[in-house]
Amino acid sequence: MVEAIKVLRVRGAPAIGVAGAFGVYLGIKDFSEKESITAFYNHLDEISRKIISARPTAVNLPWAVERIKREARRSGNTIAEKKQIVFDIAKKILEEDRQMCLAIGRHGYEILKIYNTILTHCNAGGFATTEYGTALAPIYYAKDKGKNIKVFADETRPLLQGARITAFELINNNIDVTLICDNMAADVMRKKMIDAVIVGADRIALNGDTANKIGTYGLAVLAKAHNIPFYVAAPSSTFDLSIENGNFIPIEQRESEEIIFCYGKQIAPRNVKVYNPAFDVTPAELITAIITEKGIICQPLKEEIKKNLV
Amino acid sequence: MVEAIKVLRVRGAPAIGVAGAFGVYLGIKDFSEKESITAFYNHLDEISRKIISARPTAVNLPWAVERIKREARRSGNTIAEKKQIVFDIAKKILEEDRQMCLAIGRHGYEILKIYNTILTHCNAGGFATTEYGTALAPIYYAKDKGKNIKVFADETRPLLQGARITAFELINNNIDVTLICDNMAADVMRKKMIDAVIVGADRIALNGDTANKIGTYGLAVLAKAHNIPFYVAAPSSTFDLSIENGNFIPIEQRESEEIIFCYGKQIAPRNVKVYNPAFDVTPAELITAIITEKGIICQPLKEEIKKNLV
Repeated sequence: MVEAIKVLRVRGAPAIGVAGAFGVYLGIKDFSEKESITAFYNHLDEISRKIISARPTAVNLPWAVERIKREARRSGNTIAEKKQIVFDIAKKILEEDRQMCLAIGRHGYEILKIYNTILTHCNAGGFATTEYGTALAPIYYAKDKGKNIKVFADETRPLLQGARITAFELINNNIDVTLICDNMAADVMRKKMIDAVIVGADRIALNGDTANKIGTYGLAVLAKAHNIPFYVAAPSSTFDLSIENGNFIPIEQRESEEIIFCYGKQIAPRNVKVYNPAFDVTPAELITAIITEKGIICQPLKEEIKKNLV
Repeated sequence: MVEAIKVLRVRGAPAIGVAGAFGVYLGIKDFSEKESITAFYNHLDEISRKIISARPTAVNLPWAVERIKREARRSGNTIAEKKQIVFDIAKKILEEDRQMCLAIGRHGYEILKIYNTILTHCNAGGFATTEYGTALAPIYYAKDKGKNIKVFADETRPLLQGARITAFELINNNIDVTLICDNMAADVMRKKMIDAVIVGADRIALNGDTANKIGTYGLAVLAKAHNIPFYVAAPSSTFDLSIENGNFIPIEQRESEEIIFCYGKQIAPRNVKVYNPAFDVTPAELITAIITEKGIICQPLKEEIKKNLV
């Protein structure tokens, strides 16, 4: 599990938290029940350290592992009981994430059920979470309700999460999906081939400004120009209420190799200068509403976020 | 030369015309001068047919070859004289294209000289024409005048002409170029990293609506939203005055393989549906001005095109 998290076989903050939780259980489940409780705690600490170190910057990973450690110390008397508690908390974390996705799906469905075709960017689906995902949750929820919403998926250069992950997971879930290059979104909007845009979020500021995969901001501007609603779907844990607005969200600049090479194949001059921000910030005023597991946050976002989440 | 045109080693309508013209000369230059004039004409016709068939849809190719054939029949008395005429006309076509690019560069420079950094899409540079190109001509002209305009180049998915051609030719001409993915253009505009956008054109309708590489329309919408001027540079031969507006410009849909594979490497599910238009149409109202070899066509484009080109 440590290796799976390390090499990104598991990606997406919620999915990493759940995987880490079960990783702790896998690490302790065969521990001899004849040993002392202290020895068990030591082993639990060691396993936890290993798992957390697999992805040091992933917030959900230490959160899940620490929660398990805390509960395992607090409850149960024997090692056998404590093992069961570790397993139960891991299952609880899994179930909570599943419920979070489901709630986003349910709330999102109330908005998206009037649409026939939506456009999404990057991947905020089941492969980043436990089941439904965030941005794709309303699509899956709608399908369960018998409403088939078609999806256009941006391929999402440079790392092609839309082509590699979103298209793959939608096909496997029997959702009608059409792949486009990022620069085709405007054409698709102009020709009224989509009714709405829905994306995930990496971080949302107190005023509603939203950081998400590079290209999201451009989509929001294009949606506005074509009178197409633009939705963000994200769990309430994505809100960083310590950040006043999007100007204070740090944007990671990534390596030029990501653009110059595609799967190891050189596609541009080796020595070309490259600008490669991982994220951009969509200003709150371009966002029609934010869909969370607690409900829909409508405009004015700043006031509504303060009222509902602070 | 036939093979070079056929496999797209020569691309871009003006470059194909010039290459075809010299191809005719290469085909007749060793023809025995002891033969009859009729035999020479037959050989010229055969060579011309071969060259035209290399790229049947390229308008500039038959135009250049027919022009040479016409002149070779009209002027000169001996085979030696007619060979010289073929060579002279080929050089004339080359020189006319060079002058056309230079004139676009000169007119464009009058506009672009106030800018420090421009964004371009696809490739409308020297590799599509004889020397300066069209969209890149003002940049080269400015450099000759001692003014260094920096360029941001969209990589231009799916065929990556920006990454493969524009970045390459600008680096080789010592122009400061930064490569971005298409979905980063909005971010670059918002951060005021560019002052203007300039693109080429595949076809321009009577009212100024402009067909160009897919992604151009989105750039024009984004430029408008950010108050950034948006220029088209194209020779007057690009205007199709028989077409009232952009709705009547046919748009080629290309194969899904272009998006699903990148240089032979599969980057999306093999069975995913794909929408892959080669071009989009930018409405005239989003175009600040069109730069031609005859001068600048400003708004209102429809009236100005009628006044200057019809």
